[in-house]
Parts: sequence; structure tokens; C-alpha cells
Amino acid sequence: MTGEELLLMIPGPVPLLPRIREAMSRPMIYHRGEEFGEMYREIVDGLKWIFQTKNDLFVMSGSGTCAMEAAVGNLLRTDTPAVCIVNGKFGERLVEIGHRYSTNVRAVEFEWGGSIELDAVKAAMDEVQPQVVTMVHNETSTGILNPAEAIAKLAREYDALFVLDCITSIGGYNVPIDQWGVDIAITGSQKCLGAPPGISAISISDRAWALMEANSSRRPYYMDLIAYRDSYDKFQTPYTPALPLFFALHEALEVIREEGMVKRIERHRLLADTVRNAIDAMGLSLFPKLNEVSEYSNTVTAVNVPEWLDDASLRAGMRERGVMVAGGQGRLKGRIFRIATMGNITEREVSRTIQALDSTLKEHR
Amino acid sequence: MTGEELLLMIPGPVPLLPRIREAMSRPMIYHRGEEFGEMYREIVDGLKWIFQTKNDLFVMSGSGTCAMEAAVGNLLRTDTPAVCIVNGKFGERLVEIGHRYSTNVRAVEFEWGGSIELDAVKAAMDEVQPQVVTMVHNETSTGILNPAEAIAKLAREYDALFVLDCITSIGGYNVPIDQWGVDIAITGSQKCLGAPPGISAISISDRAWALMEANSSRRPYYMDLIAYRDSYDKFQTPYTPALPLFFALHEALEVIREEGMVKRIERHRLLADTVRNAIDAMGLSLFPKLNEVSEYSNTVTAVNVPEWLDDASLRAGMRERGVMVAGGQGRLKGRIFRIATMGNITEREVSRTIQALDSTLKEHR
Repeated sequence: MTGEELLLMIPGPVPLLPRIREAMSRPMIYHRGEEFGEMYREIVDGLKWIFQTKNDLFVMSGSGTCAMEAAVGNLLRTDTPAVCIVNGKFGERLVEIGHRYSTNVRAVEFEWGGSIELDAVKAAMDEVQPQVVTMVHNETSTGILNPAEAIAKLAREYDALFVLDCITSIGGYNVPIDQWGVDIAITGSQKCLGAPPGISAISISDRAWALMEANSSRRPYYMDLIAYRDSYDKFQTPYTPALPLFFALHEALEVIREEGMVKRIERHRLLADTVRNAIDAMGLSLFPKLNEVSEYSNTVTAVNVPEWLDDASLRAGMRERGVMVAGGQGRLKGRIFRIATMGNITEREVSRTIQALDSTLKEHR
Repeated sequence: MTGEELLLMIPGPVPLLPRIREAMSRPMIYHRGEEFGEMYREIVDGLKWIFQTKNDLFVMSGSGTCAMEAAVGNLLRTDTPAVCIVNGKFGERLVEIGHRYSTNVRAVEFEWGGSIELDAVKAAMDEVQPQVVTMVHNETSTGILNPAEAIAKLAREYDALFVLDCITSIGGYNVPIDQWGVDIAITGSQKCLGAPPGISAISISDRAWALMEANSSRRPYYMDLIAYRDSYDKFQTPYTPALPLFFALHEALEVIREEGMVKRIERHRLLADTVRNAIDAMGLSLFPKLNEVSEYSNTVTAVNVPEWLDDASLRAGMRERGVMVAGGQGRLKGRIFRIATMGNITEREVSRTIQALDSTLKEHR
């Protein structure tokens, strides 16, 4: 971080280390040649290490939503039964995508910022007998970590595939895809991986391939995962890849390797702890309502806007002090603000953020 | 161009001017803020100027194929009648995409590298009574410029929407979208615009919007053009944009503005002429078979591999001499090679290419 520009403490795009930014100014290369192939293979291997998976994994030239649609759109046919768990904006997005592909999508909805209740999920699964279950691991819109392992286990009991949106967890959390039994996991470049926005990654289990192969007619084209698999035989992508973003992701993975995942996860936890403690010390309150299966997120902290101050003034005050935090999305607009601690953020940026918040609150109190 | 790296004379990704590469190493910005909004609006206005259109226009974070699917996928419902004109790989791709969305897609096929015959198109249109007609303007796979104006006129006579893939024409050709009456036009960043790969642009006429709005249930999600239109009210994209590629495209459009479109089109024509004359002088032959409605492409020249030399040796020889040209795709693999003259290529790069080809031929003859 240079510290000169506005400090982005929003849940993506995250600030980029200079070496990651500079990687993008390399000259273009032939996207069907050996140089690209080697880079792509290294990216895939690096991501498999972070995903802790032996499943196939590909990088798509599109944002996280592109990978979300790839997951849902390749699996669901006209009337495939699916259960989509929702407790925030991104859970809802998976439902919206599901409705484009199947008429048999059941949303199991919880309060935004509220915890997921396993009994309610079970009841819906008894009724729908889903082939596919979707959930967001770290709900970016509310700052809550959902119980991925428990839902993965449940999905397996019902013989359903489990799609887990890990867009703001992978790279900042321990997310053992194979150990948990996640059939499709996705992540975005501009979150905990610390790379620029515009590309995304997706891993696919053998069970998921089997359902996709049976879905011959209705798969999306640009995000046809079977085309991705076929092209990977030659370490290529089916369509022209967003080369500069691949260069940057390759460098970002090198940064992660140098730090090590254990340290990286611990750093994310410590920084979030620092933020949460500061919020408490300033007399503010965290937004999520937790039960025993949920946790506060270590990658984005959602805070209730205090009654005596409006959201716009709070965020404007922080911005004047050089720090951008995120507002609430959808129905939470104006009610919460969010501080991200993702990617290559350090204590220094977190301190600057806390100071900016403290000073803004003092100005208005 | 620096001249140090391998010279990419392939039809995308094209070599990037240093100022366009460097634009990507800027720090990240908030993608819902004013700074992004202003940049996005300038990009859209610049592209509308190049497209010569007053239609809505958006930039998608995905390659040209993403925009191709956006065009077809938003228009076609389960059984929408469509005629797709094919005389090369990319025309075929539009058919493949069409089949994912409608059971009533008729491919009107001509020889790859052969011209489009208006009577055959008319006959198919009489039979199918299409709501949508698709064609590739500049068929990158064969080096042929297809008769866009004539087909646009025909589509209008049949009251069908006209989708024109201008991925390798816009930015290097005069393509007056509104004058011709093209309902959806698309282009890619990494071709004649001279920007890096990974984003694409699409323009949509009022008639096209009307058909899309009637297609409520089946539209793709990531490439839902109505979501793009809604977000553009605030100069935003519906999902996180590939920021570094937007920075680069913004700079690439500035380069185009400085050169001027008239000069730019003339430069593309002159460079292609130089290549064609050199091919002739070296005793080689151009691949496409032309009739009165077709032309050799000014952005990519397809050349028959001479009988006395194999394609692999030819391209390897050129590569040893620092120049990469493209091979044939699909059924043309091994039969042709292709020299692109797109983007910000100058006489200098064209000379280097011709010298490398000449020297390679002399070595093997």
C-alpha cells in the first residue's frame, strides 16, 4: 500500500500491493502458447492449494457473479429441485440466478444478518428433496460466517450437491473444500486473494460433473464448465482470458505463498479482532445476530450505524480522513456500515481506519 | 511497441502501447463511486462515437464471447425463430450459442472463407421468418469482410432484429451502426481498439430492448442487459467491473481520439494493403474466395500455406525471427495462416512481419 490514495477498506476491490499492480503492465502474450499455459497451470495449482482441493479448478474471465452463475447454471435444468439458503444479499443472488434456470428453486430465508438455523434447512430439504443446495460461506452484506461444514454434511445426507460461494472467505479463512465435501466452490479475485477485480475461480467435484454432463442442452455458453475442462487439457481457457488480470493473480498467489496460509488466516483473524474490539471500545455495536453455528466474519465487519448519527455523515467523515468503508446494501442501506479486512491489509491500514472512525464519531458526538 | 518482446501479429490480443499497459498499474478505486462513474461514462461516450450510434451501449467484464452470448441470450426465448449466417468459426459460434437458447435456430452456412450469398440468406428468411438475424462482420477466422449493410437492410425488410458481431471490425473500419440499422453490435477490447483482453462492448437499439423486455424468464444473469441498463442510470455496472481493464480501455480510447477515426481506418486499410501486396510479391495467395458483396479484411489477412511448406515450420520460422502470426482455426488448421493488422500496429511492425515471412520462405524454399 502506498498510503497516498484513498484507503479502500471495502469488501472488494481491495487495495493492491505495488508488485501486483505492476504485474499488469507486462506486454501481452499469446493466450494459446506455452508461456500462458505455464502461468495458468501455476495459478490453478496455487488456487487448489488454497481451496485444499483435488477437484478440477478453473479461472473464469468474469467477476464473482459470473462464477456464481457458472455453478448454478451448469447444474440446474428446467425443473431441478434446489434449496438455496439466504441470510443476506449474496444468498439472495444465488436464488435469483437459480430462478433463471429451474422452476423448482426453494429459498430458505433467514433474517439478513441473522444466523442460519439447521432445523429450518432440514425441513425444506425434506420437502423439496433437492439435487442441489447453495449457500454463501461468508455473507459479505452482513458480516456473518455461515456454517459451511454443517450444511455440507446435511447436503451429503440428502445426497444433494453442495455449492458454496466462498467469494469473501477463501484466502482469508481455512476452507478445506474436500474435507468438508463441497461440490462446487467459487471465489473472486478482488477479495481475500488480494488481486484486482474481473476474474474468478471455481472448483468442481466428480459428483458435480456427473450432473452437468446430464444437463446437455441448457448450459450457459460463455461459462460452460465442460468447455473449461476440455480446454484445460492444453492449459488453455475456452475463450480469450483477461491476460493482465491473470498476470496479477499469478503475482497475488506468489504473495500468498510467501506469507503462508496459516499466517494469512491468523492475520485476517487478528485484524478483524482488532476492528471488533475497537468498535466495542467506541460504544458501537456489531450488526449480526449469532447462534451457536454462526460466527462474526473475519474478512468484513458489519457495524450498526449509531442512532445519533446518519450513515452518510459517518462515511463522508471517514472519507475526508482518507478512508473508505462500505455502506449497507439493499434493505440494510443506511442501517449498517462495513469495514473489510481482506487481502493484503495490515495493522497499519486497520489503525488508520479505526482512527478515522474514532475521529469522525468524536466530531459528531 | 517496445520491439523487445515477441511481436504479436495475431488477431488479438494485440500488442499494447506502453501508456495503455501502464494505465493498468493505477491503484484500485471504489467501483460505485464518482471517479469510476465518470470514467465509465467517458468510455461509453467514446465507444458510441466509434460505433456511430445513439443506442444504449455498455461495457461487460468478459471477453467478446461474453458479449456474443449477451446479444443472443437476451433476445432468444425457447423457440424464437432466428437465422444465423455462417462462413467461419465465429459465425458458427453464434449458432452454437443460439442453440442453447432456442430450438428454432437456422444456420445458413457457406464455405469457410467463402462469400455470403444474399439469395441463399433470403431463401432461409422466407422459410424461417426470423425475429433475429445474426452475422459476423469481419470473420477473423478467414480474413473476410461480410456485407453488413446489405444484410441489415434485408433483416429490416423481414422485420427481424439484426445482431452484428463487430469484434474485429469496430475500431479499424467505418461501421456506422445507426445508419446501417444494426440492432445489436458488439466488439472486444483486445482487437482494433488496441486495449488488453477481458472486456467487451455491446450496443442495443430500442427495437432490441422491446424483444428483451418480453423475454422475462430466460435471460442470462451475469450478462442480463436490462440489469446493465438499470445500473447505467448511476454510471455503474451491475456487478464488479474489471477495473484495470477499464483503465486501459479508457486510455486506448484516448489514443483513438488523438489519432482520429478517419486516419485510423485509413491506416488499417494501408497496412492490410501492404501485407496483401507483399503476399502477392512473395508468390503466396490469399485464402478468401470473394464475390461482389465481400471484401478482403483490412484487420486480418488469411494466407494459404504454400504446398511446399508446412504450417508448423512456417510459423516456427517466423517466431524464431521474433514475429508471431496465427494459424488456421478448426477445419482450417494447417491450411492457412493469418496476419493481423489491428489496433495500434504501424508500418514498422508490418515491415518486420513481412521481412520475417520472406526470410522464412527463403530458408525453406
